[in-house]
Parts: sequence; C-alpha cells; structure tokens
Amino acid sequence: MGLHRVLEPTGVLPQAALRLDASPEIGPDEVRVGVERLNLDAASFRQLRTAHGGDGDAVRAAVLEIVGTRGKMQNPVTGSGGMLVGTVQEVGAESPLGLAPGDRVATLVSLTLTPLAVTDGLASWDGRSEQVPARGHAILFARSIVAVLPDDLPVPLALAVMDVCGAPALTHRVVAARPGASVAVLGAAGKSGSLALAAARRAGASRLVGLVPTAAEEERLRAAGLAGEVVRADARDPVAVAAAVGDPVDVTVVCVDVPGCEHGAILSTAPGGTVVFFSMATSFPAAALGAEGLAADVTMLIGNGYVPGHASMALDLLRNEPGVRASFTARTGGDSAQ
Amino acid sequence: MGLHRVLEPTGVLPQAALRLDASPEIGPDEVRVGVERLNLDAASFRQLRTAHGGDGDAVRAAVLEIVGTRGKMQNPVTGSGGMLVGTVQEVGAESPLGLAPGDRVATLVSLTLTPLAVTDGLASWDGRSEQVPARGHAILFARSIVAVLPDDLPVPLALAVMDVCGAPALTHRVVAARPGASVAVLGAAGKSGSLALAAARRAGASRLVGLVPTAAEEERLRAAGLAGEVVRADARDPVAVAAAVGDPVDVTVVCVDVPGCEHGAILSTAPGGTVVFFSMATSFPAAALGAEGLAADVTMLIGNGYVPGHASMALDLLRNEPGVRASFTARTGGDSAQ
Repeated sequence: MGLHRVLEPTGVLPQAALRLDASPEIGPDEVRVGVERLNLDAASFRQLRTAHGGDGDAVRAAVLEIVGTRGKMQNPVTGSGGMLVGTVQEVGAESPLGLAPGDRVATLVSLTLTPLAVTDGLASWDGRSEQVPARGHAILFARSIVAVLPDDLPVPLALAVMDVCGAPALTHRVVAARPGASVAVLGAAGKSGSLALAAARRAGASRLVGLVPTAAEEERLRAAGLAGEVVRADARDPVAVAAAVGDPVDVTVVCVDVPGCEHGAILSTAPGGTVVFFSMATSFPAAALGAEGLAADVTMLIGNGYVPGHASMALDLLRNEPGVRASFTARTGGDSAQ
Repeated sequence: MGLHRVLEPTGVLPQAALRLDASPEIGPDEVRVGVERLNLDAASFRQLRTAHGGDGDAVRAAVLEIVGTRGKMQNPVTGSGGMLVGTVQEVGAESPLGLAPGDRVATLVSLTLTPLAVTDGLASWDGRSEQVPARGHAILFARSIVAVLPDDLPVPLALAVMDVCGAPALTHRVVAARPGASVAVLGAAGKSGSLALAAARRAGASRLVGLVPTAAEEERLRAAGLAGEVVRADARDPVAVAAAVGDPVDVTVVCVDVPGCEHGAILSTAPGGTVVFFSMATSFPAAALGAEGLAADVTMLIGNGYVPGHASMALDLLRNEPGVRASFTARTGGDSAQ
C-alpha cells in the first residue's frame, strides 16, 4: 500500500499524506515508471485554471509547485489528482503486477497516491489542457492498478478512457441489478457521461435520459445517439433538473464536474431509486442532508473508481460504440493526436 | 420544498442557501413551531468548540451570529446543522403534516434547511453542550419530516435519538439484505454507533464488532452488551483499524464524527462488501479515491438521514435495548434531565 513512502503525517495512507517520498530507488514490491503524460482530474484542472484566470504559465507553475512540494500530483483544493501514462523502467523482484521493463502502461490508481517526480519543468505543456506531456518518474506499489496500453488506440484516447473507467463499470453494475431500470445521466456529453450512458444501455436500461447544459452539447449528444432522450438544464438548478428529466428515474448518474449538483440528482430520482455520484466535486454533507431535507428515500453511492474489469469494459464500449468515441474525440482533439 | 423562503442565492433549495427568510408569517402549506431546544449536529458543535478554544460564551455568540445572518443554523465550516424540538403554534390550511397547535414535535429534517429565528439570545445555554435551550420560532414546509414527541421518554433523550435515527434504519436495511453478514461499527459507543449496533443485530448480523478509541469507551461498550467483540483503535489510523477489526467484514458502518476515517473503513471491509458513511465529517474524494487507490471493490453509501419509519425504529431500539439507553444517558446526562 506504499506506507513506507509516506513522509508526512506518518501513519496515514499515501492518498491522505501531505508529502510522499518520490525517490527513484524502488523497493522489492515496487515498480518505477518513466512518465510520458499526466492526465489531470477534470475538477482539479478546472479549479487551477479558474484560480489563475486561465493563465497557462501560472497553471503550469502551480502544478510544478504541487508536485515538487508534495511528491505527488494532488490538488490541495479539490483533493483530486488524475492518472498517468509511461513506460516501465524497473520492476522489483517481488512485484505482483506482472509488468516487464519496456511495457507501456497507464496507472488506474489516482495520482493522489502515486509518488511522482517531474524533471522537465513541464516545458512541453501550455497549461491549457488536462493532458500534460511530462518527463520524470512515478512509483507503483504492490496493490496499484495498472493497465498495459492497447495497441489499437491512440495514447491520449486510451488514457482519457481509463481515467473515467470506474463510471461505466459501476453504472453497469447498478443498472443490471434493476432489470428495466429507467436511467438519467447528468453531464451526459462528457467523457464519463457518455460511457455511463453506453454502459446503462448495455445493462438493459429501459428509458435513458441524457442531461446537458448547453445547446451545443445537446446537439452533439443527439448526434451521438447514446441517449433515448436528450434534455437541457443547468445541473446546479434542482428544480430545472427535475423538470427536464420529467418522470423520476430509478437510477441517476452524476458526471458533472462542478459543485452543487446533489439536489437536482436527488429530486430526479424516484423513491427507492439510486443516485451514483462520480464527480469529485460532490459534497458529502450536501448529498446526505439534501436527501434528508427532501424526505427522499434514495440510495446514494460514492462513485468508487475501482470495479474489477473496469478498464477493459470502458475500452470495449469505446471500440464498439461510435457515439462514445465521438464524445471522446470531441474532447481530446481527435484520434490522430500523439 | 420551501423555495420561496430562499433569499440568496435564488434558485437553490433551502439547504444550499446562504440565507433564508425566517419571518414568522406562514404560507398555506407551512407550519410555525415555537422553539424549545436545538440539538446541534455533533460535527458542527465540535468544530465550534474547537475554533473557540472551548469558550462557551464565544460558542454561543457564534451560534447566534450564524442564525442571525443565515436565518437557519447551518455551520458554514462543516455544512451541518442539527434538529430542534418545540410546540406547534400555527398550521397553514394546506399543510399535509397532520399537526395541530399545541403538538410537541421534533423536526427530523436538518436545521440546515429550516428557517429559524432565536429571540432569547440563547441566555439559558452555557455554550458547552450540543443541547441548546432556546426561544424563537421555526418554519416547517409541506415536505418536512416531523415527529410528535413520545410521552414515555424525556425530551432530550427522544431528541438525541431522533437526531441520529437515519443510522439504525439504513444499517438495518443494508444488513438485512445480506443474511448472516459480519458487521463492524466504527465509533460504536456513541449515539448513532450504539443504535447502529442494535439495528445490525436485529437485522441478523452474525459477527458484530464495535470499535472505539479509548479504554473508557471500551469498558462502557462492553458493559452495554451491544457488540460481540469490542476492539480499540484510532479510527483515523487505517492500518490500526484493519488490525483491530481482524477478518474484513461484509458491512462497515462509520459513526465517528471526526475527519479522516474513510481509509480505515475501506480497509476493514471485505471485497464485495459495503461501507455506510454516517459522519458528516466524511470526505467524498477521500472515500472515492481511497477505495480506488486500495483497489477495493466495495460499495460506499452516503448515509441518507431519511429512511421511512426511521424515528419509530430508533425509539423502539432505545426502549427495548438497555445497552442503547445506557449509551445515550451516558451522553445526555441522565434520563432525568428535562
């Protein structure tokens, strides 16, 4: 679990640590990866961009400062990180991960708990995108989750898919457990949203509603064909969300990466239904007290980023659902990049 | 839902509002209650006490400032509130709550969304307890949840039970859905913890572990007889928690009202198991990323304070489980207090 890499405070797990030891020498159950690219968590990148008024140089300096100080890329405001892609450099004799030097891999555990050192000053990054070309190294632990990158997909695309692969996997599990469930996805045109829609359909959803905030996203999602109904509302406006969704659904999936979407999701969900929160911007008290205040008998799940088989399911959805691929390439700037 | 009482910002539900209109004139579906007593949320009171170095006068001033500014008792740091007891003064012609003037009631929705005015400067409160004698008024909405106080229990005791009655109800539901489940309760000697233990046993738990932080609580919980095993560890130390619980359990219930208990709860839970977070101090990202970082395939529930029948179940547990009553009276200072 990497406890020996925790410098401060002692006794906590790496994700809760203020500072990790990112030195390159590996222990017997560790793996060192040469970093090629970081993929910042959407909520984290949005916070940094907003805090620095969109100034790319300032955002780059802020990321360097965080990594330099903490020995990991964990945004102190949002608490979130992201993931990375790189090439295995060295494998400890007792590592159970099954990797060999030269394997090109993506980490599926959060950057918030991954010891990381950056050595190129992020010189190739303009600070204006979540995808950060970088040189340096990262350390994987025995319990880390890592995927060898597929040969048939561009790296940025595979990385973007794997970053949110918990969402479709958990959505599939929840919907499959309620045969014929009606499902609404808030933030449906984004990465996790489009995957969640495709997963819900595959799991047997009956009615399938995609909610988006803008006319442009509405048009895009309609063209993607992932939802039976595409509706538009500000996900932070609970009354508008409930009106847009119409008849309350059995399962609501929240993929909107801005704060304040808890109440709309609760209002859109039928009694006995389930809300799955994937956004790192979710507030625990807002959800818990909101449901209580609305006398809403709904089950609320914290979107666990780990479900066995999550990466392969998400990649499979991407390969077989043109609408998912279209949603991703609209964001990552085309399949042809890198 | 009380949207018309929201002064700022417009469009949000009362719980998310910065400021509510607490004026005493009621609408046709509202009820005005004359306040007798507030019961502050444990996390909120702890934060206020710590922030003011235990100075009761300063804590009282802080609560008055919050209520005066916001028109509700919602701690801006923790986001949480509490509940209140009082007597119905006036009932709107269209109120569906079934109340009559003179009914002595407890609100089961959070103070975070209840318009509240305090008129006595909290003069009867020393600022050193969560239970706050108060004079003033509060407004209930059509969808509010309210319980007429039972005749057979002292008011502070009934109030303390109702404040945490979501915990036993949801624990019962989760455990009953997994026949013979093993269960651990973190923070087991407290109010919600003791009720959760009793509910888990009633729901058919096999192994039942209660975790507490101190020798004094260990002794108290052992005497109460609510848990099959009583173990001791700091719930914020994940490795210590996992070691104390031993074999991972099917269901872990978190009732500790301090931050940083997410990882220990996840580590104590077997693959395929469920963690139920009741503490308002729970961090959504710490839970979501912690499970991912540990490759833990666990279902994580946000403890919804509303489950149909929750108040009557909790009162029933209190009446029939001497160990529960003992846990409560150790906290509320005896059954004899008003």
